[in-house]
Amino acid sequence: MNTFKEYIASQLNSKSPQMDDLIENCNTRQILKDEFLLRQGEQSRYIFFVEQGLLKQYSVDEKGKEHILMFAPEKWFVADRESLYFKRPSLYFIKALEDSRVVLLEESFINKIAEVDHSFLELNNRLLNNHILHLQNRINSLLSDSAEERYLSFVQTYPDILLRVPQAMVASYLGITPESLSRVRKDLAERNFHK
Amino acid sequence: MNTFKEYIASQLNSKSPQMDDLIENCNTRQILKDEFLLRQGEQSRYIFFVEQGLLKQYSVDEKGKEHILMFAPEKWFVADRESLYFKRPSLYFIKALEDSRVVLLEESFINKIAEVDHSFLELNNRLLNNHILHLQNRINSLLSDSAEERYLSFVQTYPDILLRVPQAMVASYLGITPESLSRVRKDLAERNFHK
Repeated sequence: MNTFKEYIASQLNSKSPQMDDLIENCNTRQILKDEFLLRQGEQSRYIFFVEQGLLKQYSVDEKGKEHILMFAPEKWFVADRESLYFKRPSLYFIKALEDSRVVLLEESFINKIAEVDHSFLELNNRLLNNHILHLQNRINSLLSDSAEERYLSFVQTYPDILLRVPQAMVASYLGITPESLSRVRKDLAERNFHK
Repeated sequence: MNTFKEYIASQLNSKSPQMDDLIENCNTRQILKDEFLLRQGEQSRYIFFVEQGLLKQYSVDEKGKEHILMFAPEKWFVADRESLYFKRPSLYFIKALEDSRVVLLEESFINKIAEVDHSFLELNNRLLNNHILHLQNRINSLLSDSAEERYLSFVQTYPDILLRVPQAMVASYLGITPESLSRVRKDLAERNFHK
């Protein structure tokens, strides 16, 4: 089990006993595969931290087609910051792909913990910057990378997810058809075989 | 002229004289059309705030093709946070599309000003969250929107930019060919004409 407390400890050089108390009192929730943590149109109240399991954040277009914004395996955060921070109805769904255990963090918790311990503010800032860089590079990849390059960078970002989700979901994340994903995988396999 | 000082004043309810001092002492730079503020491979040192003019942030792929991550007109911030915050060589270029006047903000400035005035920290947090929501929605749009929908949301994000940049750059931002952009514009014009 990757607990939130252990994760925070691994990210900070030192932390105060007050911070420990706050973290220990966080709400956690056990959810089943296919359960929703957020639905399109709802206002999001939480940032989710995945202790165990796997979540996906996605939108559904008017034709009913799913578009996957991100996967969140163990030790990842997922949130709809537009809805959470700016109090707007969410454009996205967040759903469990496996039975999962998640920590529910309110925005006010970030402020509370930052007051108790300034080093947490620095961590929060690092997490926000890290999130921005991932999103920025994903946009760049969607604009410029071939299907194969997108697939390879997916494998790098999510090394263990390929075995945990259906191929169609991987294709949806990459913005390519399941057929092109099969072609990419076949090409890569053949090239490795002939090496 | 949209000065950084006026912009900060418009975003905060109150601010201290010390904050005013810090802001007045920021470095500004006058740059010419086609001048670079950052090149691929360099380490970025600044967040840029545009007082006047227009910047673009883009990457160039191995075939020499440009991919536009964002435009930054007046009152916008632009930065490669990966390079700035995590001290890595930048994947991107930042270049002036018009003669421009920009404020150069070091990461340490944010910390300094936040120490003097906590309300700035809140503003910084809001800006980071706002940046995340824009990037998130752009990814969703690249995954799910038609060329026409992408164009319409571009017009909403950048109402006055259409007249300031060549069509080919708009197409590059949208991740479509210049030919499909022409088609989209023609279709929209015809539909408006027949309304």
